[in-house]
Amino acid sequence: MRIAGSAGLLSGRRPPPGAQPGVFELPASAHPSDVRALIWDGERLEERTVHGPEELAAAAHAPGVTWIEVTGLGDGTVLAWIRDALGVHPLAVADIANTPQRPKFEDYGDRDLLIAQQVCRDEDAGIAVEQVSLIAAPHWVLSVVERPCELFAPVRQRIRTMASIRRMGADYLAYALLDAVIDGYFPTVEAIAEVLDDLEDEILGRPGPTLLARLHSVRRVLVTLHRSMWRQRDALAQILREDGEPLGAGVHVYFRDAHDHTLQILDAVESYRELTIGLMDLYLSSVSNRLNETMKTLTIMATIFIPLTFLVGVYGMNFEVMPELHWRFGYPVLWTGMIAIAAGLLWWFRRRGWLGKDPEDESGGG
Amino acid sequence: MRIAGSAGLLSGRRPPPGAQPGVFELPASAHPSDVRALIWDGERLEERTVHGPEELAAAAHAPGVTWIEVTGLGDGTVLAWIRDALGVHPLAVADIANTPQRPKFEDYGDRDLLIAQQVCRDEDAGIAVEQVSLIAAPHWVLSVVERPCELFAPVRQRIRTMASIRRMGADYLAYALLDAVIDGYFPTVEAIAEVLDDLEDEILGRPGPTLLARLHSVRRVLVTLHRSMWRQRDALAQILREDGEPLGAGVHVYFRDAHDHTLQILDAVESYRELTIGLMDLYLSSVSNRLNETMKTLTIMATIFIPLTFLVGVYGMNFEVMPELHWRFGYPVLWTGMIAIAAGLLWWFRRRGWLGKDPEDESGGG
Amino acid sequence: MRIAGSAGLLSGRRPPPGAQPGVFELPASAHPSDVRALIWDGERLEERTVHGPEELAAAAHAPGVTWIEVTGLGDGTVLAWIRDALGVHPLAVADIANTPQRPKFEDYGDRDLLIAQQVCRDEDAGIAVEQVSLIAAPHWVLSVVERPCELFAPVRQRIRTMASIRRMGADYLAYALLDAVIDGYFPTVEAIAEVLDDLEDEILGRPGPTLLARLHSVRRVLVTLHRSMWRQRDALAQILREDGEPLGAGVHVYFRDAHDHTLQILDAVESYRELTIGLMDLYLSSVSNRLNETMKTLTIMATIFIPLTFLVGVYGMNFEVMPELHWRFGYPVLWTGMIAIAAGLLWWFRRRGWLGKDPEDESGGG
Amino acid sequence: MRIAGSAGLLSGRRPPPGAQPGVFELPASAHPSDVRALIWDGERLEERTVHGPEELAAAAHAPGVTWIEVTGLGDGTVLAWIRDALGVHPLAVADIANTPQRPKFEDYGDRDLLIAQQVCRDEDAGIAVEQVSLIAAPHWVLSVVERPCELFAPVRQRIRTMASIRRMGADYLAYALLDAVIDGYFPTVEAIAEVLDDLEDEILGRPGPTLLARLHSVRRVLVTLHRSMWRQRDALAQILREDGEPLGAGVHVYFRDAHDHTLQILDAVESYRELTIGLMDLYLSSVSNRLNETMKTLTIMATIFIPLTFLVGVYGMNFEVMPELHWRFGYPVLWTGMIAIAAGLLWWFRRRGWLGKDPEDESGGG
Amino acid sequence: MRIAGSAGLLSGRRPPPGAQPGVFELPASAHPSDVRALIWDGERLEERTVHGPEELAAAAHAPGVTWIEVTGLGDGTVLAWIRDALGVHPLAVADIANTPQRPKFEDYGDRDLLIAQQVCRDEDAGIAVEQVSLIAAPHWVLSVVERPCELFAPVRQRIRTMASIRRMGADYLAYALLDAVIDGYFPTVEAIAEVLDDLEDEILGRPGPTLLARLHSVRRVLVTLHRSMWRQRDALAQILREDGEPLGAGVHVYFRDAHDHTLQILDAVESYRELTIGLMDLYLSSVSNRLNETMKTLTIMATIFIPLTFLVGVYGMNFEVMPELHWRFGYPVLWTGMIAIAAGLLWWFRRRGWLGKDPEDESGGG
Repeated sequence: MRIAGSAGLLSGRRPPPGAQPGVFELPASAHPSDVRALIWDGERLEERTVHGPEELAAAAHAPGVTWIEVTGLGDGTVLAWIRDALGVHPLAVADIANTPQRPKFEDYGDRDLLIAQQVCRDEDAGIAVEQVSLIAAPHWVLSVVERPCELFAPVRQRIRTMASIRRMGADYLAYALLDAVIDGYFPTVEAIAEVLDDLEDEILGRPGPTLLARLHSVRRVLVTLHRSMWRQRDALAQILREDGEPLGAGVHVYFRDAHDHTLQILDAVESYRELTIGLMDLYLSSVSNRLNETMKTLTIMATIFIPLTFLVGVYGMNFEVMPELHWRFGYPVLWTGMIAIAAGLLWWFRRRGWLGKDPEDESGGG
Repeated sequence: MRIAGSAGLLSGRRPPPGAQPGVFELPASAHPSDVRALIWDGERLEERTVHGPEELAAAAHAPGVTWIEVTGLGDGTVLAWIRDALGVHPLAVADIANTPQRPKFEDYGDRDLLIAQQVCRDEDAGIAVEQVSLIAAPHWVLSVVERPCELFAPVRQRIRTMASIRRMGADYLAYALLDAVIDGYFPTVEAIAEVLDDLEDEILGRPGPTLLARLHSVRRVLVTLHRSMWRQRDALAQILREDGEPLGAGVHVYFRDAHDHTLQILDAVESYRELTIGLMDLYLSSVSNRLNETMKTLTIMATIFIPLTFLVGVYGMNFEVMPELHWRFGYPVLWTGMIAIAAGLLWWFRRRGWLGKDPEDESGGG
Repeated sequence: MRIAGSAGLLSGRRPPPGAQPGVFELPASAHPSDVRALIWDGERLEERTVHGPEELAAAAHAPGVTWIEVTGLGDGTVLAWIRDALGVHPLAVADIANTPQRPKFEDYGDRDLLIAQQVCRDEDAGIAVEQVSLIAAPHWVLSVVERPCELFAPVRQRIRTMASIRRMGADYLAYALLDAVIDGYFPTVEAIAEVLDDLEDEILGRPGPTLLARLHSVRRVLVTLHRSMWRQRDALAQILREDGEPLGAGVHVYFRDAHDHTLQILDAVESYRELTIGLMDLYLSSVSNRLNETMKTLTIMATIFIPLTFLVGVYGMNFEVMPELHWRFGYPVLWTGMIAIAAGLLWWFRRRGWLGKDPEDESGGG
Repeated sequence: MRIAGSAGLLSGRRPPPGAQPGVFELPASAHPSDVRALIWDGERLEERTVHGPEELAAAAHAPGVTWIEVTGLGDGTVLAWIRDALGVHPLAVADIANTPQRPKFEDYGDRDLLIAQQVCRDEDAGIAVEQVSLIAAPHWVLSVVERPCELFAPVRQRIRTMASIRRMGADYLAYALLDAVIDGYFPTVEAIAEVLDDLEDEILGRPGPTLLARLHSVRRVLVTLHRSMWRQRDALAQILREDGEPLGAGVHVYFRDAHDHTLQILDAVESYRELTIGLMDLYLSSVSNRLNETMKTLTIMATIFIPLTFLVGVYGMNFEVMPELHWRFGYPVLWTGMIAIAAGLLWWFRRRGWLGKDPEDESGGG
Repeated sequence: MRIAGSAGLLSGRRPPPGAQPGVFELPASAHPSDVRALIWDGERLEERTVHGPEELAAAAHAPGVTWIEVTGLGDGTVLAWIRDALGVHPLAVADIANTPQRPKFEDYGDRDLLIAQQVCRDEDAGIAVEQVSLIAAPHWVLSVVERPCELFAPVRQRIRTMASIRRMGADYLAYALLDAVIDGYFPTVEAIAEVLDDLEDEILGRPGPTLLARLHSVRRVLVTLHRSMWRQRDALAQILREDGEPLGAGVHVYFRDAHDHTLQILDAVESYRELTIGLMDLYLSSVSNRLNETMKTLTIMATIFIPLTFLVGVYGMNFEVMPELHWRFGYPVLWTGMIAIAAGLLWWFRRRGWLGKDPEDESGGG
């Protein structure tokens, strides 16, 4: 399990210290941008591709509700359109460009900025965390993601097929998009639960050589998810304290539900972090235990044979005068003595509990 | 001690991310539902089984107080009845269906939603945590559980036999049901206390091979109980801040008592978590100690016999010119020297405190 | 140091989950009850033993201030008297009976309930924690303890001998009793400080086999005291926020002093908990250190003699053609070589710092 | 990675305890001071070097906005000018002189004091933390640093070249300088992220001898950065609560952005601290693992050869009566027996999992 | 570094539990008391020694500002004077006598009580923590210390020599004394920083046998300083919330500065606590590392020589039929084989990284 994606680390894009606030710099490798608008008014539903600032302004000001969906930042032209044609504050535009920002809510009059972080499961790299930026205005919502991750597809589908969401305003659309992003954490959290279960079984059974690395990478993922969800929760609490437009009291019941989901995810992430620490303790204990078993094996072996080897060494000496060597029953008597010593030591080990049943065959302590 | 039950983990039922809020999906394996109504008004007490939305509405609107008890969600038909015939908000119905929710209180006008988590002791799997959902309305209370766990039986019995509870309103009934759920944690917490006492005795005595696994599973149970009770406490504090119907100030003295019980349980769970960490430390220390004892045994054995074995090896050599071999008292002199060396080493070990009384026979450090 | 007493653990008396709130169950083994009243009015002082509900009501309503002291709960008859003759709320009576409750303050109109936990030093079991329940009314105070622990004796003595306390009201009496209970923690906390000092000396010196068990039991005691004092502090803060009768602003300066004492005790308990964790770390480090010393001894011994034993083995072989065996100075040359090898190894060990002064004779690392 | 600079430690300059508040003492080694003023008014821009208190006052009171940039404290003369010619409170001047102060905001009427700590990357010593003091007045801003660190260069450049910043007031200038200092943390935090990644790879691979020292020094740097940023965040939150001059509501949107940056840095620093602790655990576990591997090697070797060595010792004895020695096939039979014993022990080790594939060649546990 | 002094531990003087509040008991060994008064009014400055309650009252009520300096409590007579002649509340007098109290501020009308704890560096015992009690009244300040520690000397000197402090009121004097006490922590904190630097160098170099004990005692000192400063900060925050006499808003700017110093000290103490825990981890890791090195030495030695010793044992056997013994080149062939075995094992150890450069010579992991 690995974290990838621009939002997973702090090492994102950022203008150099001391630069003018509100500026942004985009790497040449940025994903080319694609701007689509979904406009509906009652029963009417229209989808457009937007090619310039005028078309953008027209789409935003169309009657009804408009969802402008931007994918990829390209060379930043689209960001200039957003700033100029839609009247979004330059600081908000800079937050869209200079990823990763922490999840937050900022009220710029009737252009509210919502930053969230989406978690996509990526077959190769594990988990990709990407910034999602939303601008909520009274009649339109702008969403910006850099790389497509199909979290918005079900929302788009609901708009196309169900009348109920089309009867709600732009504030509900902002909620629906944010909720899709937040609910996208659940499958990841469940995957972590399964990984932890596997790791626990492995630690109590026979831990493999990559166990520690896997345990540590789960810990990293949990630290990232916790940081992200914690800020998301703060942002939602702030929305619930807001009063005016565009995210008014009318949709608070829905945002409260989203807030509740962040709490559920946080609860789970915190429990899993605690379990991860518990697993690390468990692993350390079981390694110590195993070391003890190893040492007992060595000690039993050495303690039994070292005195016997000494004894046979004694009778390998070449002294002229060693009467025992000439006794008739010297050899069998020595064997008897050596067997007695070995038996005595074995009895002593058993009394100390070192020779009970082999704990390796049991779960747990082996 | 193991956690089972749908509420113990986050991996519950949940519509896919991006789905419409308020929808729910039920697995085909859901427990079939059984709806019973208990209606009383002064001395009159009536029990009915409810078979359709009209009967449900009739029971809820019967004069007096009604307790509608739903066991099992079946195919979700009952949930639709609740939404449509009783006027419960779709988001509240979704929270009943999409278990596990965290324990919470939500005020939907005069239909308050209370989510709690009951702890049932299950002979096979240890502990089963299940969601309990309550809807409190001015004249009726609806309780929904998926699998029956006889926590509500004493309340039912009190309603059948005691006039005092029948003189109170629906708000008191909501309290009585919630209190039964919360008090159901006490036996589990006491069982954990006993398990911890046993584990402590075992660590200080002779730890068995499954000790670590048992210690870790207690830790898991405590993490789950803590998460659940912490949220329950928040939910109760929120009820105590509420003012209007249906859970008004009249029953606050009772809910304050329930809140007090959550604090007691939390205190105990937190103390036990700390003790669990202390036991893990204790175990690690005692394993280290035991390892040290093992190594001392080996070191004493090896240190005494290795020089002696060297010496007897010397006189096993076949050099032509080895004058000692021809001395008359060479052999007894060698024995005397070897015994002196062994005695000297034993004296040195005793001075270092390695040969005191056998700590294995004492409690603690062995 | 061991915790005993009913309040030390959660496994107290408690009606089964789902039972009616306000009920209590008493074990057959409960201490028989003894009710005494101490009544004063100006200079007049009277002591009575109370035998029934009428006498109880008469004592409470006598002119002046009355202290009703109940020791032992017996079969619960006294609790029924308290409920019926003194007008105490059934939930408050249940809290007196169903011990242990957490320390708390609850305002039932002009019958305030104060729950505290007293710490008695018990020669056998170490520390016994018992619940103390106080009911403060405008003109009387009721105190209930199950087992006598002479914390109230000095207060009784002051009432008998000093006019100053007899000039104050019932609110001051409630304070005096609570303060006696809180100040009773100081000797215990001092005893813990001494135990920790002894444990520290022992860890840095020569730790005995029961050290770990004693360290862990101090940790348990500290967890219990912390839990208890923390709640006591909350309860006192709540009293200081109360305004009306019976514990009005007039005695707040005294309750503030008691609050201050809880803070002092909490400070000490928290510092000692931290030191206990520090001692556990210290112990683990010193065990590791000792293990290292053991292993160095073994390694030095084995590393010196293993090559020498090999060498003498070589010349014990029976090959026909082994020219060295026939050299005139073969034997002394071998001895010289072996002494050189041993000296070289010793020099190498000294260079690695393994043969410095014996750390066992120093404090600390041995 | 090492922390240097006067603000990294508490051991800064400070008058002796009991001295008059507001005094300062400067070491003889202080950097000589250099005072420059940058004055602009609309399009006009003027740069001056200031040589005396009168010139300082004149620059501050010039029409438009003035930025007075002091580098180095010299013998403190400049501080006396600041106090006397600019009317800055003596306590504020003492805070400028007695470095390091914690980052803070203090409101002395219309002379607000802002203390921050800049992080400079220093090729030799790693990271240098230096105090930056700002005095914000309605029409001028004074900045004091002891050693130049080119964080202010981009701001100076923007003033020289861009009209936009010259249209803003002194309050915006104060923001721009503070923001440059805060954004200067980002490269350091990114460098730490890289160091942690390297350390993680090394721990899971083949840890070198300096690993522990490097891990610990990262921990020290993180502790310092956290302390500094935490206080910076508090200071910014306090500015956002201020209302009047000179840092009024007009620039709050910018200070909110700076506050947001401190939160981002804090998030990262806290995550990295947690990862550092995780890495220490990982390292301990892998050392234990390695020890276990070492011991298994020894145990396998010793356990196989110790019994065999005993056996060959037996037949090296010189008893007169040892019938086996005279058997024709004694020698090959013994070899067969010894090979059988060795094979049996190897089989037993393999069954215990000690002889699986070499975990050293894998990542992780080796 | 050791903590001494009455305030370092809880085991101070205290009346028995249940005693009347406001009483105090003094040990026979208390330092005899010495009462001096410093009175000034404008330019006039007078110093007196006070011998009785009348002189005390006269000094306090002299025109201008009076500083009454009490050193030592003697038999408590002085405390009775303070209570009776200066009108100080009995609970405040008890707090002066029953040391140690936690640092606090209590408002008894126009006699404010300030408790602080001074840290004196004591050549023998390390650090002595002593209670300082201040009573601030509108025109005088009373300071009580048990043992003289020259923290107040610079303040006395400033009063004697500088007119500026003589122009301020009694409230400023209270601040100046408290500030002298708080600033007295800085040298101790700096000394701890140096000790920690030394310990870190030693751990990474060659740790001596007393290292653990010293590390633990630094931890104890930090726990004590943290507890003390934390409460001091609370007390100062409370003064800043006070409004009326004697510590009014006029001196709040100075108390805010003192509050700021407590925050600086707390920051440092918390950072050092974290570093101490880090050093303990570092030590544990380096001990484990060292153990691993020891074991590798043993394992290499044993693994090479154990098979060789077996081989030479084989050819020391006395079987009649051992053809190898009669081969002409048997002996050199055996040597060749043994050298090959040793070389093979050395190659294998080098491949496993056990024979790289000696890590003992490097800093860090050795």
